[in-house]
Amino acid sequence: MTRLSEALRRATDSVNETLESVLPTGDGAEGRLFEAMRYSILGGGKRLRPFVAISCADLFNVPRDWSLRAGAAVELVHTYSLVHDDLPAMDDDTLRRGQPTCHVRYDEATAILVGDAYQSLAFEILTTPETHPDPGVRCRLVHALATAIGGRGMISGQMIDLAAENRELDIREITRLQQLKTGALIGVSCEAGAILAQAPDEAHTALRGYAHDLGLAFQIADDLLDNEGTEADLGKSVGKDVAAGKATFVSVLGADRARRQAHLLVDQAIEHLDMFGDKANLLRDVARYMVERKN
Amino acid sequence: MTRLSEALRRATDSVNETLESVLPTGDGAEGRLFEAMRYSILGGGKRLRPFVAISCADLFNVPRDWSLRAGAAVELVHTYSLVHDDLPAMDDDTLRRGQPTCHVRYDEATAILVGDAYQSLAFEILTTPETHPDPGVRCRLVHALATAIGGRGMISGQMIDLAAENRELDIREITRLQQLKTGALIGVSCEAGAILAQAPDEAHTALRGYAHDLGLAFQIADDLLDNEGTEADLGKSVGKDVAAGKATFVSVLGADRARRQAHLLVDQAIEHLDMFGDKANLLRDVARYMVERKN
Repeated sequence: MTRLSEALRRATDSVNETLESVLPTGDGAEGRLFEAMRYSILGGGKRLRPFVAISCADLFNVPRDWSLRAGAAVELVHTYSLVHDDLPAMDDDTLRRGQPTCHVRYDEATAILVGDAYQSLAFEILTTPETHPDPGVRCRLVHALATAIGGRGMISGQMIDLAAENRELDIREITRLQQLKTGALIGVSCEAGAILAQAPDEAHTALRGYAHDLGLAFQIADDLLDNEGTEADLGKSVGKDVAAGKATFVSVLGADRARRQAHLLVDQAIEHLDMFGDKANLLRDVARYMVERKN
Repeated sequence: MTRLSEALRRATDSVNETLESVLPTGDGAEGRLFEAMRYSILGGGKRLRPFVAISCADLFNVPRDWSLRAGAAVELVHTYSLVHDDLPAMDDDTLRRGQPTCHVRYDEATAILVGDAYQSLAFEILTTPETHPDPGVRCRLVHALATAIGGRGMISGQMIDLAAENRELDIREITRLQQLKTGALIGVSCEAGAILAQAPDEAHTALRGYAHDLGLAFQIADDLLDNEGTEADLGKSVGKDVAAGKATFVSVLGADRARRQAHLLVDQAIEHLDMFGDKANLLRDVARYMVERKN
């Protein structure tokens, strides 16, 4: 896994630089907002979504300057969803990426505003010429992101997840929940490369297929880690879904079947990459890493 | 004021129709989210922002189908900011537009997600061809909106407002706070018409100037109503800023000076419209209405 871990490390550095450059700075009363915005997004995170965004864009030789901004946008959205999800009224989490959550370190009002501002910033950076010279491409990126994360996408997944505390979901329902809650954003992360490259429809379809299977494998692996990992390994609370009576892939399928299912999904994800040949080797590594990661 | 009230009524109906058509529908676990999204935005509201958006677009004979979508986008953003602002961790309001606030009628988690989904939906509808056939124009709309409402715009205003409970602001600071908190969104509402029309720079400058003065007059009038109006007239809680020890235009200037200042701003706002001749009469009426309204 040296090739992947080296590429991940370099991508993380570049994504962090891009985020640094787009985050607002300044003092005064809003200085606390800007500080909290930096705290929650620069303090850690695996940067998996920007990494797949960059790696998918690399398939088409999209300039890194462009794909890094698309990657920063999806990371901003991902972090906004974490900051809001961690609020007392939602999952009430105190630990995230190994640090106190935003509302614990600052306060609830600040955490609400930080999430809101991340979302706007994601759309702001997608619409500047630095992201792509063609405004039609920028517009398509915004549309893909807004659709994926809105009331018919990620937010629906969050809502179904909240309701899941009160009733038993079956495997079909859990799959749908996770496709919305985490899959939709992973999907747009992957497809952003094809949008930036104005690639043909087959490429979009292939990357959507890859993202679909990758997202589900990622979530099953997350449930397995939540079942078996420790807070110290993961940098976040563990066992909370089970304690809250929420069905997970592991609670419904059992750990063994869940693990086999994750491996099957990884194989499927990799098959979607056939048309890209060796250029897609890193994306194949990422898929395999999903089921091997320890955090 | 018959011309204005008739135009406002017709615009409200059209904006509501547009909102109805873009809000997600469906049942299942996310049905509660969709229901709450309809509850907070369709249950009332003066629709002043969409009205100025449509009226500014009318100056350039922009098709109503386009300007109504831009108006719906700013109303979605405005309502998202109200729903989040009303949360217990923020202003903790129980009454809005004459009805229980979203978190009171539903719950806090739902209210957080409703606001998040409104924001995404605003950007989603701006990026479809129904809003404008030229993707460059759509991209410019998204950029203007995202910049106005983000960490350097509306959210900064919210953050300064939160901090204002702990210290005395002077008139310069209150003006800046309000320009960010309410002025930035009114600004983009007005400028959207010029963007949709691909109007020359002078038109943008004039509408920005109009919006600037209109926004401040609106806020001073709001402070005066908050000082003198009743909950029944306004459909929201009154006197909260003063009770929280927050400085307002009225607490710093006194009611008489604040009223004179508002009238001065209205005159200034109207002067910015000279280049548009009689076509801008409704916008002149709106400005005058700012200081005459009772709710």
